[in-house]
Amino acid sequence: MAAKIIDGKAFAARVRGQVAEHVARLKAEHDITPGLAVVLVGEDPASQVYVRSKGKQTTEVGMNSYEHKLDVDTSEADLLALIDKLNNDPAVHGILVQLPLPKHLDEDLVINSIAPAKDVDGFHISNVGLLGTGQKSMVPCTPLGCLMMLRDHHGSISGMDAVVIGRSNIVGKPMAQLLLGDSCTVTIAHSRTKDLPDVVRRADIVVAAVGRPEMVPGDWIKEGATVIDVGINRIDAPEKGEGKTRLVGDVHYESAAARAGAITPVPGGVGPMTIACLLANTVTACCRANNLAEPEGLTA
Amino acid sequence: MAAKIIDGKAFAARVRGQVAEHVARLKAEHDITPGLAVVLVGEDPASQVYVRSKGKQTTEVGMNSYEHKLDVDTSEADLLALIDKLNNDPAVHGILVQLPLPKHLDEDLVINSIAPAKDVDGFHISNVGLLGTGQKSMVPCTPLGCLMMLRDHHGSISGMDAVVIGRSNIVGKPMAQLLLGDSCTVTIAHSRTKDLPDVVRRADIVVAAVGRPEMVPGDWIKEGATVIDVGINRIDAPEKGEGKTRLVGDVHYESAAARAGAITPVPGGVGPMTIACLLANTVTACCRANNLAEPEGLTA
Repeated sequence: MAAKIIDGKAFAARVRGQVAEHVARLKAEHDITPGLAVVLVGEDPASQVYVRSKGKQTTEVGMNSYEHKLDVDTSEADLLALIDKLNNDPAVHGILVQLPLPKHLDEDLVINSIAPAKDVDGFHISNVGLLGTGQKSMVPCTPLGCLMMLRDHHGSISGMDAVVIGRSNIVGKPMAQLLLGDSCTVTIAHSRTKDLPDVVRRADIVVAAVGRPEMVPGDWIKEGATVIDVGINRIDAPEKGEGKTRLVGDVHYESAAARAGAITPVPGGVGPMTIACLLANTVTACCRANNLAEPEGLTA
Repeated sequence: MAAKIIDGKAFAARVRGQVAEHVARLKAEHDITPGLAVVLVGEDPASQVYVRSKGKQTTEVGMNSYEHKLDVDTSEADLLALIDKLNNDPAVHGILVQLPLPKHLDEDLVINSIAPAKDVDGFHISNVGLLGTGQKSMVPCTPLGCLMMLRDHHGSISGMDAVVIGRSNIVGKPMAQLLLGDSCTVTIAHSRTKDLPDVVRRADIVVAAVGRPEMVPGDWIKEGATVIDVGINRIDAPEKGEGKTRLVGDVHYESAAARAGAITPVPGGVGPMTIACLLANTVTACCRANNLAEPEGLTA
């Protein structure tokens, strides 16, 4: 049986469509335009690409995009002053500080200075705590995207055995909380796990978020399981010519697809969902700030 | 093979002894006496017993105990004003608001008004977030006690398969975070888990925290596993005479003890550790407040 390929690009487009509808409704019915402020410190090339992409998608769904590009030498005090201004700006519903920050800036301090209700990355310690106690929070974008894909594919995932490989603060741990919130039996595996193949083999849902190219071979996957591959790793691709590279996930796609019931490819799986969920979070934050109902289908 | 019985009463006495040594050292070397403030609203009989017991043990280890007993009709504003006063009192290093609160008081609001650094119950949303991201936090007392017993019995628990049964905010979820912090492969099981016997059977460490008398039978326990029973359930004991009761855990003790490598009894297992860990947390909070080294062996 060939696995269903979960098309993250198409799914992300659908989420952006839903976001655009909510934005149109907020404008028409409440005269409110959701606004996302993105702060970039320095000129890291990858970060510049992300920020440009976020800005573009933000305006495409009809929201306001506010970009703040600061010099690489910006002082912590100046950065905190900007965040304070954005926290108090009613036109700004979401604030994202692009990571990584230059070394002289304390990332934890900066992230925790964002008003939790505007923390659309879901990294503020209060949002982690709210998620960790099953309360309404801002949820990190990548795991939120994975959850949306799982709900879409399965309807309910209640009672399913889920294994999360990787225990990072931005993917693995919040992913585990979200799966638990949807009543999966959740196992968190990691580099110290004794028998990882065995742990993965018993899972109905496998979320791989380690950052090691193709480390999960197909024969670890239970027949019919759903595989969500968060990894995006660039590897050499001499078959494409000298010096060429290609992107692969944490899962060996071909062999896993032969056993899985459904699988996300890399690229074109989880990747496109992250910015879509950032937009979703911004609409959610905007609705909450205005005491309006949560946008259906866009939150955990 | 008979299981080793993990004697929580003796272990708690040892922890209190360590706490007393730290307290004596803080007094001798720094002229500081750790202080714990306990706030009780109303006259719930069980809460009164707990508060009395906490106060007694606090003074026995040489710390200052401050008890604040408020009328059942106390307003939220008055309670918050008291907490604010305690937050700003340098003689108070730990603050505990005895739960449950009378219905007219918002528990979340009250708990989150405690300064996180003084939140010795570890229930403040910031402490949940810090624990959930592997940072230094105040850790809930009962799971901290379980962790101490596991570390004491095993030395290192890194790489062991641990199953936590129950996903409450005060035991199950923080327990899972602590086990993950010590590099166990952690599974969280609960009422929606499909095949609980099978999930429990693969565990090297079983932590039962459900609150259902003797729901885990011995034949779910893997030969040689360590069983930590958090449940304290009162059941009828007609064999002791009419109307008599007795305490049992969430695990069927006799049959589990026949298979386990080590097990905590009920009563006399996890129970006594909770207040001991409250005292440990208060010393930890005091050391942190004074920029002194963490008290060894008393923190996660």
